[in-house]
Amino acid sequence: MRASALGLLIVILFNIATFAQNNPASQIARQWRQQHERSIIDEFAALLSIPNVSQDRENIQRNADFIVRMMETRGIAARQVTVPNASPIVFGEIRTAGAVRTLMFYAHYDGQPVTPAQWSAPPFSPTLRRDGTTIPHPPAGQPFDPESRLYARGAGDDKAPIVALMVALDAIRASSIRLKSNVKFVFEGEEEAGSRNLARILSANKDLFSGDIWFFCDTPVHPSRRQQIVFGSPGFGRVDVTVYGPRVELHGGHYGNWAPNPALMLSRLLASMKDDKGKILIANYYDGIVPLSQAEKRAIAESPDMDAQLMEDFGLGSRVGAPMKIAELVTLPVLNIRGMASAGVGAESSSIVPSTALASMNLTFVKGMEFGKTVELIKEHIRAQGFFVVDAEPTLAVRRSHEKVAMVTASGGAYGGPRTPMDLPLSQEVMRVVDSVRGGAVKLPMMGGAVPLEVIERALGTRVIVMPIANHDNNQHSFDENLRIQNLWDGIELMAALLAM
Amino acid sequence: MRASALGLLIVILFNIATFAQNNPASQIARQWRQQHERSIIDEFAALLSIPNVSQDRENIQRNADFIVRMMETRGIAARQVTVPNASPIVFGEIRTAGAVRTLMFYAHYDGQPVTPAQWSAPPFSPTLRRDGTTIPHPPAGQPFDPESRLYARGAGDDKAPIVALMVALDAIRASSIRLKSNVKFVFEGEEEAGSRNLARILSANKDLFSGDIWFFCDTPVHPSRRQQIVFGSPGFGRVDVTVYGPRVELHGGHYGNWAPNPALMLSRLLASMKDDKGKILIANYYDGIVPLSQAEKRAIAESPDMDAQLMEDFGLGSRVGAPMKIAELVTLPVLNIRGMASAGVGAESSSIVPSTALASMNLTFVKGMEFGKTVELIKEHIRAQGFFVVDAEPTLAVRRSHEKVAMVTASGGAYGGPRTPMDLPLSQEVMRVVDSVRGGAVKLPMMGGAVPLEVIERALGTRVIVMPIANHDNNQHSFDENLRIQNLWDGIELMAALLAM
Repeated sequence: MRASALGLLIVILFNIATFAQNNPASQIARQWRQQHERSIIDEFAALLSIPNVSQDRENIQRNADFIVRMMETRGIAARQVTVPNASPIVFGEIRTAGAVRTLMFYAHYDGQPVTPAQWSAPPFSPTLRRDGTTIPHPPAGQPFDPESRLYARGAGDDKAPIVALMVALDAIRASSIRLKSNVKFVFEGEEEAGSRNLARILSANKDLFSGDIWFFCDTPVHPSRRQQIVFGSPGFGRVDVTVYGPRVELHGGHYGNWAPNPALMLSRLLASMKDDKGKILIANYYDGIVPLSQAEKRAIAESPDMDAQLMEDFGLGSRVGAPMKIAELVTLPVLNIRGMASAGVGAESSSIVPSTALASMNLTFVKGMEFGKTVELIKEHIRAQGFFVVDAEPTLAVRRSHEKVAMVTASGGAYGGPRTPMDLPLSQEVMRVVDSVRGGAVKLPMMGGAVPLEVIERALGTRVIVMPIANHDNNQHSFDENLRIQNLWDGIELMAALLAM
Repeated sequence: MRASALGLLIVILFNIATFAQNNPASQIARQWRQQHERSIIDEFAALLSIPNVSQDRENIQRNADFIVRMMETRGIAARQVTVPNASPIVFGEIRTAGAVRTLMFYAHYDGQPVTPAQWSAPPFSPTLRRDGTTIPHPPAGQPFDPESRLYARGAGDDKAPIVALMVALDAIRASSIRLKSNVKFVFEGEEEAGSRNLARILSANKDLFSGDIWFFCDTPVHPSRRQQIVFGSPGFGRVDVTVYGPRVELHGGHYGNWAPNPALMLSRLLASMKDDKGKILIANYYDGIVPLSQAEKRAIAESPDMDAQLMEDFGLGSRVGAPMKIAELVTLPVLNIRGMASAGVGAESSSIVPSTALASMNLTFVKGMEFGKTVELIKEHIRAQGFFVVDAEPTLAVRRSHEKVAMVTASGGAYGGPRTPMDLPLSQEVMRVVDSVRGGAVKLPMMGGAVPLEVIERALGTRVIVMPIANHDNNQHSFDENLRIQNLWDGIELMAALLAM
């Protein structure tokens, strides 16, 4: 173990040790789980056995029906809510006498497409493995190895929270603990297809989906395996820039000193967009961004510094954005070159002046930014570098009549993603509850990945907090997706604590 | 017709009109040709019917045998000269009583590979076409349409000079004109495979291949269709630069502000190499380059200014290197990005931080430059931008221990290409002879493309002048290669004048 990893471990152990683990609901959930491991895993495996690729509408419906039955078995009023041409949201509701608030639990039951040939076992035949090797389920009454993992599409992303919530509810009901809040379950069926109907379904059923807080139970926990609570997610966008040279590729020796080279023009343009510390140099780019609150700054300061470990893992000798941690950097807008191409390289290349050069960039939009305005700033910057900017393939006449021509196309959401204030009383309460379960939760103002928080907040006006349970190494979106068994056990305890809030 | 093209045409017509066309050998060659068009084309077509892809050794040998017979039929002492594992050079010699100099005529009989499916007719079934449409050969005694073209692999590159030389010799021998110089023919069989054995064959047979001047009969004439004489050609090289980011692609939203982006690092590096006028900014890059002589400067000043026409043709609204003409720009070293790639673009792209970024560059080396020294200057420049430079795929340990890592690989010739001085008495004489044929020849110190002049000059110490006859639009190296019939007629007259020097 390298010094950096050892240091990190010490920090983690110290943090976990200093937090109390005294949540009654999570404690009874643990006892319940220990007595019912086999049936919990059986129910999870049954759900994972139903293929759930978003586009596979027939099987998506089978999943929805199965989840309705999971709720009805538990006496929860369940139904499927949809709009034309959408996969159903499975909705369940528990009304609690005297409750003054409603807690919403979101997860999604659909999954990414699969390429079965890549998988070690069929993606919809749940398989238990330890260190990659298939192992049998333990004999009745014996515990599961908490470091074993259940492999199947959807195991980590995102059927685990559905099972964890149901089991947590079973545990609470078998105990003397009584729910204090109303509870609603919202299990989406097309998150992996871009949640394209979520806004429509929510807007058409505002009463049904309204509540005081949405727990967005998706994404993984912290790489250190500590619980993670995230209060925001960026909006995503994409900008592609194509720069034009001669209309046909020209002889690189003959025209190399004469023809404008689009690869060089593009390089110069991209180099002008950021300084070597990672700061975006496009004028006014950061204008209007809602600054971090004191609570958010404090959370970032308290979050683990992962730099040394990540640089080691990723084979890096440097990183940009210092001295800010990733936790802070994800609260700033990203303008990242995700791909670049001009003519051929390697075996396909020849000595020519390329005709075009293209860079594809992904953008994140943070609170206070607007997609359209940001794209306009980028275009303005490109114009300031001497380019005539078009939004479709330029004609030869256009190419002939301008010194430099760039085509800029953009796609993305309309607004920067939301950040639920960490100093709201409800936020503070959620953090206290989560820390009372296992201690040492990592609290972050924002994550770097896209989840549709903005859709929910915009449609309903409700705050959202991201509450993951999957292991960070769950291979989501890839082959051999899995859930570490201990993460399911921890998830059951976490959900019990939240249900009992 | 646009104003620029019209202006160009006027310049051309004026220039041609002001030159005398009074070369006796070329005049008798014209008469001979007019009387023998059919048999000339028949012999050319027979030669073109023999497949000549460099790698096809069996057919290459058939070509060599056929050319030996073409010479023997004319009473020329012919033989095949080779070294182990090389295709033969067909060598022919005419000794002239009392001659005090020897003229060497080089051409090559091999051709580029073919993809027959791309061709309008099989590449080794010579086809006569006018404006793309197949036409019959004219009836016996009727002239060929001078604007028709013969289509076949090798028609333009480079069997035409072989036929032109033989026909020119026929014409001279049928006249009262007597040769004044010794003449040697050198027809190579693997130029399109990089002339990889040329130096070995020449060095092993110095006496055979020695002469006072080599006419390198290859490449096309000027795009204006004027004759072209070129006194030099650059050496070629290639440098590939790979820049490293994280060892695996990372999530573009999460790590976009943290991970060093190799596409951006590469862009910044490439942008640092040239200013926006096209000047190379690498320290000492131009050191040691032999400056242009007064004669070379004058030739460039007198050469046509093609800018407006080329910008129109290539769909460009600007060009670099102004106010220098292309004729001057090719005498300067080229450092041209020929291809660039990082991760995926278009449908294959996703929002990630790429792991690597690669640029492939082609270089030309002009008189006074050395390949190894130039590559070292480039590496030094890359180091000065903060990179640790390696020459093979870096290990993870290397990537972890350096802020920025670049792999630089290079290949190419050892020296800058030669320029035969335009003010040599022999150079001056050649220019006078060529102008006496048709007038208005374009004389250039250098071309931008690579031909193995340096190999010849280094092996034999003999000066080389490039003397093309093919039309510029002959599709060489591509499908539907062709020779415009008038270019063959002009070539016969040109070769007659040179043979009679």
